[in-house]
Amino acid sequence: MSEQFFVVPEAKHNALVEAAYQHRGFDAEEAAAAARFSAYASRHGIRTHNALKALHLDHLFGSGSQGCKPSAKIEVISNRFKASEVWNANRKLGQATGYAAIERAIELADEYGVGQVSVDNAFHYLWGGGYVMEAAKRGYIAYTNCTAALAEVVPFKGKFPTLGTNPHSWGFPTAETLGYPIVIDWATSVVAMGRVQQFAREGVQLPENAAVDAEGNPTTDPKAAKALLPFGAHKGYGLSLINELFGGLIGGSLPTLRSRWAEDGEKHSCAFYFQVVHPDALSSGNFSQGRSQAENLHAVIQDVIGHGNENAILPGQFEAEAAKRCDANGGLLFSAAEVEAFSELAAECGEDSWSLDSFSPAK
Amino acid sequence: MSEQFFVVPEAKHNALVEAAYQHRGFDAEEAAAAARFSAYASRHGIRTHNALKALHLDHLFGSGSQGCKPSAKIEVISNRFKASEVWNANRKLGQATGYAAIERAIELADEYGVGQVSVDNAFHYLWGGGYVMEAAKRGYIAYTNCTAALAEVVPFKGKFPTLGTNPHSWGFPTAETLGYPIVIDWATSVVAMGRVQQFAREGVQLPENAAVDAEGNPTTDPKAAKALLPFGAHKGYGLSLINELFGGLIGGSLPTLRSRWAEDGEKHSCAFYFQVVHPDALSSGNFSQGRSQAENLHAVIQDVIGHGNENAILPGQFEAEAAKRCDANGGLLFSAAEVEAFSELAAECGEDSWSLDSFSPAK
Repeated sequence: MSEQFFVVPEAKHNALVEAAYQHRGFDAEEAAAAARFSAYASRHGIRTHNALKALHLDHLFGSGSQGCKPSAKIEVISNRFKASEVWNANRKLGQATGYAAIERAIELADEYGVGQVSVDNAFHYLWGGGYVMEAAKRGYIAYTNCTAALAEVVPFKGKFPTLGTNPHSWGFPTAETLGYPIVIDWATSVVAMGRVQQFAREGVQLPENAAVDAEGNPTTDPKAAKALLPFGAHKGYGLSLINELFGGLIGGSLPTLRSRWAEDGEKHSCAFYFQVVHPDALSSGNFSQGRSQAENLHAVIQDVIGHGNENAILPGQFEAEAAKRCDANGGLLFSAAEVEAFSELAAECGEDSWSLDSFSPAK
Repeated sequence: MSEQFFVVPEAKHNALVEAAYQHRGFDAEEAAAAARFSAYASRHGIRTHNALKALHLDHLFGSGSQGCKPSAKIEVISNRFKASEVWNANRKLGQATGYAAIERAIELADEYGVGQVSVDNAFHYLWGGGYVMEAAKRGYIAYTNCTAALAEVVPFKGKFPTLGTNPHSWGFPTAETLGYPIVIDWATSVVAMGRVQQFAREGVQLPENAAVDAEGNPTTDPKAAKALLPFGAHKGYGLSLINELFGGLIGGSLPTLRSRWAEDGEKHSCAFYFQVVHPDALSSGNFSQGRSQAENLHAVIQDVIGHGNENAILPGQFEAEAAKRCDANGGLLFSAAEVEAFSELAAECGEDSWSLDSFSPAK
């Protein structure tokens, strides 16, 4: 990384983020969840989903719109299925909802081997990777998908955006042997709309088959790009469709209406799906060479990245390296522009100074 | 379809396939499962995984090698998790095992909302889409993955093949409203090795980033291609890795040892993972415009493929159209070359004539 970063103590970051959420009407518990989650994202190098992005999304689609309701209570909708819960989040803050849902799915997996929590009337949980990473660090296999806030992605062979960037996130319990959990986590579009806008500013061409123009024709010109394309042609399209199918089964309405709030009796909210599997519930107990399950998983992984594949990166490795760098510096790392944005936020919230010269440059 | 097909009555196809499997030592129940499954594949236009392919795979890796044991008994390995089963298939025929596993996962989903069956010491189940399609036709959400027979795929940024073509298959219960289940089913490599060989014979170049040469460098020359690449760069690599992680957690050994049988005390078998979700276990019961869950799912799907996206294909649509064509013709459809191959098989097994002039050309 050639960009200069500055070290922000996590407590200072969290105090500001909590204040900012409380300033917007969220209660102390919600504000703490938001601060904790954005610190977790920043610690793992997830710059696209830090506190600044979370607050911006909350302004655009959340408490600044009708998408998120401070102090909303989650209702558990009863059903007859023992390993499954369905919640009406009543548009509660996504991070607080996400933490609660993965926790409940873990409890269900402890008893049933697999547990699922589906969430209707949800608000943006920011970074699905964070929830599954946390479950994976605790020894579980975890999966989540959600419907994205906006329909920005065109179906394969289509013309008009009717899908979200619909991410999938999987976490696997490899922390004990690899030092970090494998976390497979990405959007089903080739690039995000934010990247298209960045390329337009910088005069950089888009990759092939990443975006379409106003007529729905593929373009590599970021200024002409009006909607995104799924990665991997029909394969990424199928993956993106899965999120809408889960959303539609849970209780979400049409993707093209999502986040477009109006007093029209429609549902405009997102849906989340969480699933946790206990690794013991998959185990035959019969591993080659007398290995334990964890040792066997490790041997399989070493086989995949062995044989001359040393340049292959394991998913989750970058995030683990970012966390190590934060640990070595004793705080979260932000660019000068990010510190500047936090500084403006601090002034609004009446918090301590965030002047750049009060932070050490990161090693 | 410009290629000429011939109509083979399903009973005649099944009688020959059953005879061929019994000829190889499989029992009547296994032979019936193999025949039924290959008829299901052919009926849905899955030409890459018809009976001829199944028998060829059995010869290469199955009962002709040490990968598959006729009349093997499945052992259920007890565990403490109520919605989860783990099986030792003892290398039983994959189609018989797959049918039994999805059936058990459905029973678990009926009670727990979600159920999973993990299978160790498995043999190739051919076409994951078939099992999830059947569950989806019966109203369930179903998912399966498996570890492929051979390590033919290079990890993203690697040089050497250590992954399989590792497919994922998902089925969704849309038959009632769409007329067919949505089935999302594909390998995580850009192309299959069979396609590379076909391109080499036909003198056609491969797409970019689909294969590597002996040194691990990308090539579009099918004659120089020695291994495959995952689709979608790190994203397809991550998906392919998931199958190895499940396999490693279940009981599979190193992917580079798989199907390379030797008396070395190693495990060379595949692993399967099956999961079924009951749609009622996802439902909030609160659907916009007074819709039922099925109506809501349908409305979401119509929104995705509406708005000028009429050329977008729903996954599973081609398979449904193939089945309609079979129904209209009153039998399974095979090319002249395929009928010729069946004819050779019939001669070996002492079955009825399969001379081409005994079959009607397909409409």
